[in-house]
Amino acid sequence: MLPHAEQAARDLALVREKRPLVHNITNYVVMQYTANALLALGASPVMAHAAEEVEEMASLAHALVLNIGTLSGPWIEGMRVAGSVASRRGIPIVLDPVGAGATRLRTHTAVRLLDECRVAVLRGNASEVLAVVRGAGGTRGVDAAHRVEDAVEAARELARRRSIVVAITGAVDHVTDGDSLVRVRNGHAAMSSITGSGCTATAVIAAFCAVNTRALAATGHALAVYGIAGEHAARRSVLPGTFGTALIDMLHAVTPERVADEARIEE
Amino acid sequence: MLPHAEQAARDLALVREKRPLVHNITNYVVMQYTANALLALGASPVMAHAAEEVEEMASLAHALVLNIGTLSGPWIEGMRVAGSVASRRGIPIVLDPVGAGATRLRTHTAVRLLDECRVAVLRGNASEVLAVVRGAGGTRGVDAAHRVEDAVEAARELARRRSIVVAITGAVDHVTDGDSLVRVRNGHAAMSSITGSGCTATAVIAAFCAVNTRALAATGHALAVYGIAGEHAARRSVLPGTFGTALIDMLHAVTPERVADEARIEE
Amino acid sequence: MLPHAEQAARDLALVREKRPLVHNITNYVVMQYTANALLALGASPVMAHAAEEVEEMASLAHALVLNIGTLSGPWIEGMRVAGSVASRRGIPIVLDPVGAGATRLRTHTAVRLLDECRVAVLRGNASEVLAVVRGAGGTRGVDAAHRVEDAVEAARELARRRSIVVAITGAVDHVTDGDSLVRVRNGHAAMSSITGSGCTATAVIAAFCAVNTRALAATGHALAVYGIAGEHAARRSVLPGTFGTALIDMLHAVTPERVADEARIEE
Repeated sequence: MLPHAEQAARDLALVREKRPLVHNITNYVVMQYTANALLALGASPVMAHAAEEVEEMASLAHALVLNIGTLSGPWIEGMRVAGSVASRRGIPIVLDPVGAGATRLRTHTAVRLLDECRVAVLRGNASEVLAVVRGAGGTRGVDAAHRVEDAVEAARELARRRSIVVAITGAVDHVTDGDSLVRVRNGHAAMSSITGSGCTATAVIAAFCAVNTRALAATGHALAVYGIAGEHAARRSVLPGTFGTALIDMLHAVTPERVADEARIEE
Repeated sequence: MLPHAEQAARDLALVREKRPLVHNITNYVVMQYTANALLALGASPVMAHAAEEVEEMASLAHALVLNIGTLSGPWIEGMRVAGSVASRRGIPIVLDPVGAGATRLRTHTAVRLLDECRVAVLRGNASEVLAVVRGAGGTRGVDAAHRVEDAVEAARELARRRSIVVAITGAVDHVTDGDSLVRVRNGHAAMSSITGSGCTATAVIAAFCAVNTRALAATGHALAVYGIAGEHAARRSVLPGTFGTALIDMLHAVTPERVADEARIEE
Repeated sequence: MLPHAEQAARDLALVREKRPLVHNITNYVVMQYTANALLALGASPVMAHAAEEVEEMASLAHALVLNIGTLSGPWIEGMRVAGSVASRRGIPIVLDPVGAGATRLRTHTAVRLLDECRVAVLRGNASEVLAVVRGAGGTRGVDAAHRVEDAVEAARELARRRSIVVAITGAVDHVTDGDSLVRVRNGHAAMSSITGSGCTATAVIAAFCAVNTRALAATGHALAVYGIAGEHAARRSVLPGTFGTALIDMLHAVTPERVADEARIEE
């Protein structure tokens, strides 16, 4: 087995070679940015949300993103239909529980999608993942949000119970399948200064899961590549407007060679 | 009492210290840009529009933006529910009547929200404010749109009748509570070359109203800070793509010290 | 008659002089970008989609864009109402069949809008145009997608049968009214690296059709101007984030004089 960094480099090369079609049902705020990020990376994004067409679109896709950032009834219905198709077809579903915990609609929808679909990866920040764990009958209390270690323990419990991969992104990213725990130390603080940087991580994970069926590894590789792009973007500017533009540039410019050198993935 | 410029500087420092949660129910065109602007400024944006969740979201927020730029029935319902919660809780509601006067749906929705919610600030351009005044039973005719002075007089009438603050933004911004009139002379013509610059002003006003309950003053301070950011952005470029990016950068980079020096607020 | 390049220059000057109001019912992904592109070019964009208001908005507009990129039932209804008003008023309708062929909803909606509205110009890539031709009862098979010549022949057939202009954009743009065929050789490969570059071409075509009733010529001129802006933007950077920003800059900076020099339009 190759070292993690070289595996990440190989997955990036595969994304560029295969140009996987990533079907996104995502929130209005980040649609353009994540579409541009996926294109820059080398994947093919498509956005479609209506229940009338997502069955066909999900049938063409190599991965599905379900992001609950600006929910409403018809979009939830579209997510359920697309999730059902993707589950049947066995393509990876990556769920982003944006704002879980803030409203019951978000927490319940995240849990419902976990219940109904064969989710491959759930990615959120610590408080979102904790909200999903609690909403899904987990045992952690609200105070747990204060310690990353507790969130990681909750993620491990959720991953094991659901047979999924859970990624908590932050200063250090933690990815677990309930058994192994992978830490990714790439990235830059400026990434949290732009809207949708978490949502974009989710989309990048979907592209990597489309070319590598080992979801734990693919998620770690995706977060390393995304983090490296962020590090290079921050060398141009840490002011958020310019940084956001540079991050798209760097998702395009980052090479497998650079990833092999700079990925900081630890198991 | 501090001079206006020093008060504006203090409010900016407060936004950065308190990071108020600004709940936006806004139009599709500007969602990403205004979210980035609020983040750059130091506030915390959240977008949520469904009637099923806005009650909870508005209960967490420190200010609410209602922007009618791409209206439809379900969004109007979400605005009414959120507006009702915000009114009960006494958090500031900032209403942006985008395109009022162009269609009855927009004019009527703006007036209805004014009728039903405790709006703190209404911000628009001269013709939008005049359309709201006429739609709300004011006496100004269409021709009034040709003279800023008339729009300001109409704004004063509306502000007095509704006990709100009305801001007309343009080359010079005019802010009135029906009694006092504040003029803000910051800003740059390039701001009108990007879509959503008015909507972004509205969002910035909401962030300032979240930290300063004196809505007339807070609105003037917000427009001065936003205008100063625009002036600095224009030094990088007045070409609209680069300017739009630079404006986000400058909302992040502008310091209270600079605001104290450069704010041009007159009563 | 002036040479094509000088006619294109004259149309650009007319767009800047008349600032036509372009009413867009378009997809969520590209709304902000196309609004900024139209503003940068010198036109006035407005976005409105609800059946309740599009009748009035389309009554004010000088051109209408119907773009099916993120369809749903209520948006189709809004497109039909706006399309009906625009047809009655005789203002140009430009239809962008984004993703036609990928789902029946998209193919059927594109054909339905062609059936119900007096479309002036249909713009898509080769496979979208072929999907519309097949959906509309044309005779071309799926394999035709592999050869641009076949797509152009199908476009010619569609244009003749429907009495519309059909534009297939790509490395070379082909525009036909069923009789004449115009080729535009401006543009840069980087344009395909950003999301919504095709949708933006559609919006630019609408602005030009608003000032030049000869739809075949106006479409060629629009694509030349857009392509020239892309060529200049690519001199700043071909990395997609920076390129996307530069393209907006260049739509603003491109002059009629430059267009007269650099347009490569062949009949």
